[in-house]
Amino acid sequence: MKFISYRIDAGVGIALETAGEYRGLTAGGAHFPGTLGDLLRAGEAELRTAAAILGRYGARVDPWEVELLPPVDPGKIICIGLNYADHAAEAGLQVPDTPTVFSRFASSIVGAEAPIVLPKVSSDLDFEGELAVVIGKRGRHIDVGSALDHVAGYSCFNDGSIRDYQLRTPQWMIGKNFDRSGSLGPALVTADALPMGASGLAIRTRLNGDLVQSSSTRELIFDVATLVSLLSEAFELSPGDVIATGTPAGVGLARTPPLWMKAGDVCEVEIEGIGTLRNVVQPEPQ
Amino acid sequence: MKFISYRIDAGVGIALETAGEYRGLTAGGAHFPGTLGDLLRAGEAELRTAAAILGRYGARVDPWEVELLPPVDPGKIICIGLNYADHAAEAGLQVPDTPTVFSRFASSIVGAEAPIVLPKVSSDLDFEGELAVVIGKRGRHIDVGSALDHVAGYSCFNDGSIRDYQLRTPQWMIGKNFDRSGSLGPALVTADALPMGASGLAIRTRLNGDLVQSSSTRELIFDVATLVSLLSEAFELSPGDVIATGTPAGVGLARTPPLWMKAGDVCEVEIEGIGTLRNVVQPEPQ
Repeated sequence: MKFISYRIDAGVGIALETAGEYRGLTAGGAHFPGTLGDLLRAGEAELRTAAAILGRYGARVDPWEVELLPPVDPGKIICIGLNYADHAAEAGLQVPDTPTVFSRFASSIVGAEAPIVLPKVSSDLDFEGELAVVIGKRGRHIDVGSALDHVAGYSCFNDGSIRDYQLRTPQWMIGKNFDRSGSLGPALVTADALPMGASGLAIRTRLNGDLVQSSSTRELIFDVATLVSLLSEAFELSPGDVIATGTPAGVGLARTPPLWMKAGDVCEVEIEGIGTLRNVVQPEPQ
Repeated sequence: MKFISYRIDAGVGIALETAGEYRGLTAGGAHFPGTLGDLLRAGEAELRTAAAILGRYGARVDPWEVELLPPVDPGKIICIGLNYADHAAEAGLQVPDTPTVFSRFASSIVGAEAPIVLPKVSSDLDFEGELAVVIGKRGRHIDVGSALDHVAGYSCFNDGSIRDYQLRTPQWMIGKNFDRSGSLGPALVTADALPMGASGLAIRTRLNGDLVQSSSTRELIFDVATLVSLLSEAFELSPGDVIATGTPAGVGLARTPPLWMKAGDVCEVEIEGIGTLRNVVQPEPQ
């Protein structure tokens, strides 16, 4: 199943892809089954019921005519650094024996087609195409063997980074948390529609149509099940939490000269079987 | 003004200290003015109105008989590392020329008197007594001169840290985000009741009654106004956001041998004019 979340004048909506088009319902209207976040928190059966309702009662939604939102309003956004060996090499860093983890505030993320904001205070806006995992079932101390049972589905993530701020101190947090500097979407694709652990999917980032990153999710150093298990040592994972699994080689920082995103640039993160997360870069209002 | 937030069977409450005791009202009951977070989002005038209502209609609340909550349900929790020169020295790190910033999830924080959890997977639970700033007014690109207008008040913070996890990779995030490993409270003291920028206040941490940290908020490398201004370069600060301003020397990690908190330990962070944040350490259920 493939779901999008969106906003129209009437309110927030949820739509299901069925027979090549999206069928959606809006909050406040008849039959609205809840937001995707509500449904995940209510449990897996609710998501199936909602899909049936959307298929039966949903009106056709053109994803180009609505404001797409991140598919879930994320709880925790947990990001993994250095999770592709080629990217660790280009960053001049050793392949870690444990995942490097940081986090983003929800305010740093927009949905597909929304502008990513080039801040006033920096020109060093970089792209990082990533596979995003959306948690569907609560858990702590999850063993690797059952970790994928906690995954509702997958989406695309652009871990947009303000590199000068990120690297000014040992902690990357500030440079990873500028308002509206990253993106998540367009859709949540449920895990049952993809290979186990979303492994072996082509992942590509294009900037103004030029291929700048190209890899496969098979190349993840720590795979999805391992990440879910390791993170849950520290905290409970909850429905709606998002894990951004790290980016492959090709980021702008590692190029000579560096390749930064400029106002008007179009960045696309495409993952096989999941979709294409497209954003235009817009300068922050002066 | 000094406010606490709490929970009783009837629901969530807010109380104001007046004439040496707390007067409170509970959600769902008559005259309830809203949670402290609601009031901050509604604006400064609302907080004064709520104080008048609590003074007029509030019932006596014994803070020892209720479950104290963090005074605000925090939006963003932004933490500053290495903001006292003596602590940077004990950590073997240079005094930074820009603040080192990381963040915590709300799930990593409990209120005063609630147990801080010693995790199953580590024994390296450390204390860090800190001054917490609570934002009252939304803003981005705030200049230093008006930064304190954005501060609603102050509280005490224990930036409880799982040191082995914190230092296993370059990013501290995991070791700073274990569930219920830190605390915030007991009260929010409004800025007008304290020296400008809460400067010059004695700050002390005691572990089982022994003084383990003792400094003054005068020793902050980056003061409150500077932090508010610098952070707002990256993101909007919103009512209810919390900035933990960093810890002075004396943490357990810097001692030989290290001094970790054990089950049953009592940790207190006391800040002059604000209060004492007390927590008992409880092991995570096996």
